Amino acid sequence: MLMALFSLFIFHYTIKMFEARLLRSSILKKVLEAIKDLLTQATFDCDDNGIQLQAMDNSHVSLVSLTLRADGFDKYRCDRNISLGMNLSSMSKILKCAGDKDTVTMKAQDNADTVTFVFESPNQEKVSDYEMKLMNLDLEHLGIPETEYSCTIRMPSAEFARICRDLSQFGESMVISCTKEGVKFSASGDISTANIALAQTASIDKEEEAVVIEMDEPVTLTFACQYLNYFTKATSLSNQVQLSMSADVPLVVEYRIPDIGHIRYYLAPKIEEEDS
Amino acid sequence: MLMALFSLFIFHYTIKMFEARLLRSSILKKVLEAIKDLLTQATFDCDDNGIQLQAMDNSHVSLVSLTLRADGFDKYRCDRNISLGMNLSSMSKILKCAGDKDTVTMKAQDNADTVTFVFESPNQEKVSDYEMKLMNLDLEHLGIPETEYSCTIRMPSAEFARICRDLSQFGESMVISCTKEGVKFSASGDISTANIALAQTASIDKEEEAVVIEMDEPVTLTFACQYLNYFTKATSLSNQVQLSMSADVPLVVEYRIPDIGHIRYYLAPKIEEEDS
Amino acid sequence: MLMALFSLFIFHYTIKMFEARLLRSSILKKVLEAIKDLLTQATFDCDDNGIQLQAMDNSHVSLVSLTLRADGFDKYRCDRNISLGMNLSSMSKILKCAGDKDTVTMKAQDNADTVTFVFESPNQEKVSDYEMKLMNLDLEHLGIPETEYSCTIRMPSAEFARICRDLSQFGESMVISCTKEGVKFSASGDISTANIALAQTASIDKEEEAVVIEMDEPVTLTFACQYLNYFTKATSLSNQVQLSMSADVPLVVEYRIPDIGHIRYYLAPKIEEEDS
Repeated sequence: MLMALFSLFIFHYTIKMFEARLLRSSILKKVLEAIKDLLTQATFDCDDNGIQLQAMDNSHVSLVSLTLRADGFDKYRCDRNISLGMNLSSMSKILKCAGDKDTVTMKAQDNADTVTFVFESPNQEKVSDYEMKLMNLDLEHLGIPETEYSCTIRMPSAEFARICRDLSQFGESMVISCTKEGVKFSASGDISTANIALAQTASIDKEEEAVVIEMDEPVTLTFACQYLNYFTKATSLSNQVQLSMSADVPLVVEYRIPDIGHIRYYLAPKIEEEDS
Repeated sequence: MLMALFSLFIFHYTIKMFEARLLRSSILKKVLEAIKDLLTQATFDCDDNGIQLQAMDNSHVSLVSLTLRADGFDKYRCDRNISLGMNLSSMSKILKCAGDKDTVTMKAQDNADTVTFVFESPNQEKVSDYEMKLMNLDLEHLGIPETEYSCTIRMPSAEFARICRDLSQFGESMVISCTKEGVKFSASGDISTANIALAQTASIDKEEEAVVIEMDEPVTLTFACQYLNYFTKATSLSNQVQLSMSADVPLVVEYRIPDIGHIRYYLAPKIEEEDS
Repeated sequence: MLMALFSLFIFHYTIKMFEARLLRSSILKKVLEAIKDLLTQATFDCDDNGIQLQAMDNSHVSLVSLTLRADGFDKYRCDRNISLGMNLSSMSKILKCAGDKDTVTMKAQDNADTVTFVFESPNQEKVSDYEMKLMNLDLEHLGIPETEYSCTIRMPSAEFARICRDLSQFGESMVISCTKEGVKFSASGDISTANIALAQTASIDKEEEAVVIEMDEPVTLTFACQYLNYFTKATSLSNQVQLSMSADVPLVVEYRIPDIGHIRYYLAPKIEEEDS
């Protein structure tokens, strides 16, 4: 209907290209919300398997790892591996222009210095395209080791967000303490001390409301509230969040994105205040 | 019930006066919202036919023209032509005090230096009156010529507001380009370029969601986003907005106010960036 | 289930203590909202009858009096009279951490220098405790005399809040004028004068929407809008507010808190501007 479709057709047979389409733009919008406060720029590494993003936050304290699998997209084509260096605040601005029900297509030609986002309304009568300059970013592949964790806690993501928000009022750090019976979150300041204890759910009626703990040995670690609050920007991506902890290694906060992948945040414990 | 009613009764037979009543205050509230950011003060010209307001915006770039017809009011009386110079921020403050279901009456005596707004609740148990000093404003009758336009575009007002808001993120100017097939809105900045294309609605199920284009010849003009965003403050007055364009003459952005009149905004195109 | 329960059990038989429990935390949350902008700190006096708080506001212009009766709590125990000096902004921070459906328990041991708030979720799977340091505050028992008032006005609390908010746009003071027919609220500034008249409700269908006036003699008094606006922070505690006025004595603004008590605000009239 619009000329863009014709030019697209020609590209298909002449140029190596990357193209990924999602019927609902809301997933990509939420992913950007989940990372844009931690990262100002990042590289989206695209290959046959899907899209990967790994980056330290701006102050090099925490680490973000995003995976979007090729099979989770409604259309996915990647002729040759390509790394797209994005300015995330510009990308977020662009994605805010997509209606929640719009289809979003992200595409780039091989060796191109721009990426294009196309949003199409459900009735096809509104088509928007946004072309954004790519950035040359240093590649830093971080190689996160797979670790066995002493404790994993699965809990409602909204509950975790609420706890992080509430406790950050009382102190800069939060202690997370996991035992077989439950998990305790604590913070303390000049005037007040706060403890929030969650018991493991006795009988699980609704999977997404459950608190489930798997524990080899109890762990108590201290973290900076500020970063935990950044991580909870991913809350809308998933009903549940999973916390994985072992002594002296970074906490993993993981949100699974239904049908397409996950986002994981890593945060080293504070050493000085550790009281395990 | 309240003394004000008696004094009103006496006035009716002794003094030339202006009085206009609307059963729902919400129309007048929305009209003020639609003009108060562009104009700090304006003259309401009242005669037998109704109320007219015409004024350049504060920076003399755009022009606002408001018509409220006498027959659209639930009561309308204007014994002699009267010009009411209003401080619009004071008037807006006053109208915010009206409940949405309140009846609003605006009245002024001949040669008076105040205007009075009376708000009555549906059950008559709350009656508020606000008296506001009038201003002596220079009358500038602007005589807008009736023009035939090369293109008129009718589209959902909320869609137009969304497009103006979205594109103003990317640049200070917006190009509006109208052809038979559709209308395209574009903006570009340092990092990104944005194009939003709307196709003419194929089959019209809901009148208020339609995009309808009438075109004699294609037109492409460039406008300052800031003013378009001011104009979209009128969005709540009407489901649809109409854009009228010809080369080298001001754009007209018109919102019809159901049953009572319309508000029109005029904005000259930017010459230097025109690329028709 | 949690260790706290055991330690509580031991205290019961060894130490004099205070403990008050409400099944819904929302009442206590709203009480704090209603006082925290007027008072930075206050003493909660607890005895067999319940909890009392009386304090001048920070600038010593108005007075707050809060009563929560023992029988309104779901559990109430006070072994010995105890005065708890609270930092209200810390207490408000803590109460914001309670879910609206949480049970809240406030407790303190005799001679303790802390008070503890325990919030329990409906399913008991989340238990939070917040310990807050108490303050040594001067006790000022203010002995408010019981007065017969010339006028009492009962009206919807939301209507009163709206009127105070609206009129405070026009002037710093508000005149409240009560006659048999109704009550009039007025304010005036440089450009505008505002009058809002409420008639006594003719037939009362809904008790909470009624305006009811009891009057021995008409009263007209002037008050600072700012303080009336502070008082209306209590609006969510009650559908109705009662204003009591006599010439030359403080206005009383009373909100009854269903089933448990009331909050009263006292404000002296402005002398210079009185125009009775």
